[in-house]
Amino acid sequence: MNLEQLQKSLDISPFHCWLGLQATSIFEDGIEIILPWREELVSNPALQSTHGGILASLIDLSGLYAILACGGSVTATTDLHVDYHRTAIPGPLTVRSKIVKIGRKTSTAATEVFDGNNKLLASGRGLYLAAG
Amino acid sequence: MNLEQLQKSLDISPFHCWLGLQATSIFEDGIEIILPWREELVSNPALQSTHGGILASLIDLSGLYAILACGGSVTATTDLHVDYHRTAIPGPLTVRSKIVKIGRKTSTAATEVFDGNNKLLASGRGLYLAAG
Amino acid sequence: MNLEQLQKSLDISPFHCWLGLQATSIFEDGIEIILPWREELVSNPALQSTHGGILASLIDLSGLYAILACGGSVTATTDLHVDYHRTAIPGPLTVRSKIVKIGRKTSTAATEVFDGNNKLLASGRGLYLAAG
Amino acid sequence: MNLEQLQKSLDISPFHCWLGLQATSIFEDGIEIILPWREELVSNPALQSTHGGILASLIDLSGLYAILACGGSVTATTDLHVDYHRTAIPGPLTVRSKIVKIGRKTSTAATEVFDGNNKLLASGRGLYLAAG
Repeated sequence: MNLEQLQKSLDISPFHCWLGLQATSIFEDGIEIILPWREELVSNPALQSTHGGILASLIDLSGLYAILACGGSVTATTDLHVDYHRTAIPGPLTVRSKIVKIGRKTSTAATEVFDGNNKLLASGRGLYLAAG
Repeated sequence: MNLEQLQKSLDISPFHCWLGLQATSIFEDGIEIILPWREELVSNPALQSTHGGILASLIDLSGLYAILACGGSVTATTDLHVDYHRTAIPGPLTVRSKIVKIGRKTSTAATEVFDGNNKLLASGRGLYLAAG
Repeated sequence: MNLEQLQKSLDISPFHCWLGLQATSIFEDGIEIILPWREELVSNPALQSTHGGILASLIDLSGLYAILACGGSVTATTDLHVDYHRTAIPGPLTVRSKIVKIGRKTSTAATEVFDGNNKLLASGRGLYLAAG
Repeated sequence: MNLEQLQKSLDISPFHCWLGLQATSIFEDGIEIILPWREELVSNPALQSTHGGILASLIDLSGLYAILACGGSVTATTDLHVDYHRTAIPGPLTVRSKIVKIGRKTSTAATEVFDGNNKLLASGRGLYLAAG
């Protein structure tokens, strides 16, 4: 899967289109995606913080596409775990996912979300069921 | 906190407004929220499935407001865990959160998400930091 | 599976024998197990607290046997999540597991661990792979 | 904290002594610990597999001592998450923990457990409460 194919695959989902996700890199063992900021992502308007559910969504979806991009099979996320480290301020977010293990029945990917200053905002991992 | 106050508190967040969340019940140890369906929530258009990130968002936010509604203090989610059980088909989702423990430093709530047929779609729990 | 069969099944594992686990109840949707206290379980001798790894072990194994006892298929734990609520003081612990969902590929059980005063010490959930 | 101090600190816990843990390295951002095999660790005697609760214990405790060894403050684990990747066969296990974030209120460490062939058996992360 090349970057153009990854972007097309991401864009199948109406939620991904609403988020405006941009696939920016495919590594040997992972991928990078950029999320542009928009006001509807805000949790607390006083802080202008991005909602924790958006960060969780990024960790879920980026891990899944990392496994697909690296040749694994995925039908669905079965389990998701997110740790929140810092409040997300307005601006684009960079999401980097790395394969932990591609297995016959399940695969695992670890994902980190960074702000524009390269500060770690959230990190987590998803467990994904293989097809069949 | 009564139902009207809970709804007002939810509506402070632009993301919650975009989701169109409706607070429907406050119990002694939890709350219930309804999410109306909209097309931008879809993950896979072939299945019309609601995105796992949306389910994760519901588990995160509903647990947080359950703690607030039941008198606990919360500044932020620190950890979120979601298990996905079934594909979510189009239609409103019912989200029920129950307090596991309200603590001095952290509180925990468990949340379940059901479809219109009362099928369990996802369940999970959040750990929330107290103020101070 | 009756209580005697559950106990026999637990006793196959040398680690369970070392822990001295006693199966005490099978419910329609779960099981109860008692862990007797022993000094080797202690984490911090100043507090005489039971080690968090022991509580995690109880949540892992009790959920797995709950699924077996309720007719589900399990080959292995694939994912385990534990929240710690209170320091465990010396004395027997009561472990109660409840099925969240028995599925074709994976099953989920939620487990709570209580001390002798019925205080909740830890709670969590395991995701278990089915055979085949 | 040097290696001798880390070993002394580990040996305060009767459970760690029973496990026979050996601190082998302190890195800038983490630590390494070895667990020798013993028969009481076995889950399924037919496979001679090490119990998932033991792997969870290693991820819990090694992450906690990584934060201590790297200058963080820890009073207790508040949340633990473990993914199981492969069945653990008899033989010593190598446990490597890496700091994800040291915070004022909570810290996070990620830990991997390897067998003698350097195969990844389990990985996970703990969230640890700071003192005060």
